[in-house]
Amino acid sequence: MENLETASHVTLGRMPIYLKALHAMRDSGKKYVSSIALAEAVRENSSLVKKDLSYAIKSEGKPRVGYEVAALISDIEDFLGYKTVKNAVIVGVGKLGQALMGFGGFAKYGLNIVAGFDTNQAVVGAVVNGKPVLDFSSIKSYATENGVKIGIITTPKQFSQGVANELVEGGIRAIWNFTSRHLSVPNTVAVRNEDMASGLAILSKQLDDMLKKEDK
Amino acid sequence: MENLETASHVTLGRMPIYLKALHAMRDSGKKYVSSIALAEAVRENSSLVKKDLSYAIKSEGKPRVGYEVAALISDIEDFLGYKTVKNAVIVGVGKLGQALMGFGGFAKYGLNIVAGFDTNQAVVGAVVNGKPVLDFSSIKSYATENGVKIGIITTPKQFSQGVANELVEGGIRAIWNFTSRHLSVPNTVAVRNEDMASGLAILSKQLDDMLKKEDK
Repeated sequence: MENLETASHVTLGRMPIYLKALHAMRDSGKKYVSSIALAEAVRENSSLVKKDLSYAIKSEGKPRVGYEVAALISDIEDFLGYKTVKNAVIVGVGKLGQALMGFGGFAKYGLNIVAGFDTNQAVVGAVVNGKPVLDFSSIKSYATENGVKIGIITTPKQFSQGVANELVEGGIRAIWNFTSRHLSVPNTVAVRNEDMASGLAILSKQLDDMLKKEDK
Repeated sequence: MENLETASHVTLGRMPIYLKALHAMRDSGKKYVSSIALAEAVRENSSLVKKDLSYAIKSEGKPRVGYEVAALISDIEDFLGYKTVKNAVIVGVGKLGQALMGFGGFAKYGLNIVAGFDTNQAVVGAVVNGKPVLDFSSIKSYATENGVKIGIITTPKQFSQGVANELVEGGIRAIWNFTSRHLSVPNTVAVRNEDMASGLAILSKQLDDMLKKEDK
């Protein structure tokens, strides 16, 4: 039975981790999985896993056999909207922007990067991974005409708010922000900050703590 | 008073967000901040913020005036180990690896990328942002000789486990994994997965939910 509450961001953030483990199970020929086995694979506790899955699954697991792996993958992908193709543009075609444009792996999440935009005439006109790099001045009309709803910002941080404003005016409803600057947008626009500093802080702290412990 | 419990990963992940808000306050000339004002700036509740800060701060905030902004920044940076310079290597000097090598912003987190490594002879010998790209075959001896403790993996995912094995043998104690593959390492090695799929899943779901709501 589908859970009718709204899943929190931390639950949503764990869904791709469940998917990764489930894909590995499917690839190794596993047909069914219990919440306990899935919890072990992702190193979480099984009641948390069960609760998380309740947001996505359309049918209950069977007693003794557990969830059907293929059905569970399908339900989670459906829940996350991976099956709906969503067009996206990237603004800022430097090395990071090019890396994202060149990354083939987004298609499986339903993300289709259709074009890159930059003000730098040295890259405007180029083609990266089959996608055109266009002049930033055309972003609003491009987004409107092509019904693009997702904008990815990979510019230097001092430009990110200006870029966000243009994206919003062009009808963009979701911004994936790779700059470290906080963005002000209307509350009809979703923003996700890909803040690498957080990941680095956790890793750095873990390393520090380990090394300090060993020094004692 | 410093909190003697160990901060959780979610607490650690919020620390850079507090820092960002505090830097903005300092830059605008603010000398003191209450936990309520900081909580508003980062859109969290103030008791959570207070608890989080208790792990890092060395002196209590003063009644009525709050925390001294500069001291709070210093305490958090110290807590996160940003003031200790940590040498790191990057393995996989493709577009993402080059983007990370070229990114000037890691220095403020104490992360010093000293070299890149690749098996591709077309990039071995190049210099990116003043750092050499070396042959992957020399990674173990390089890491050992230079006391490098952090390894960043930006290879195609099928190589990540092999790379992790070499890094561990070279004395690396913390791995920042940008590939989508799960890594098996000894428990004396910290691993942080920079899984962009999680961020994308949350954004994608938010967009889906917004658009569905409007359709109704």
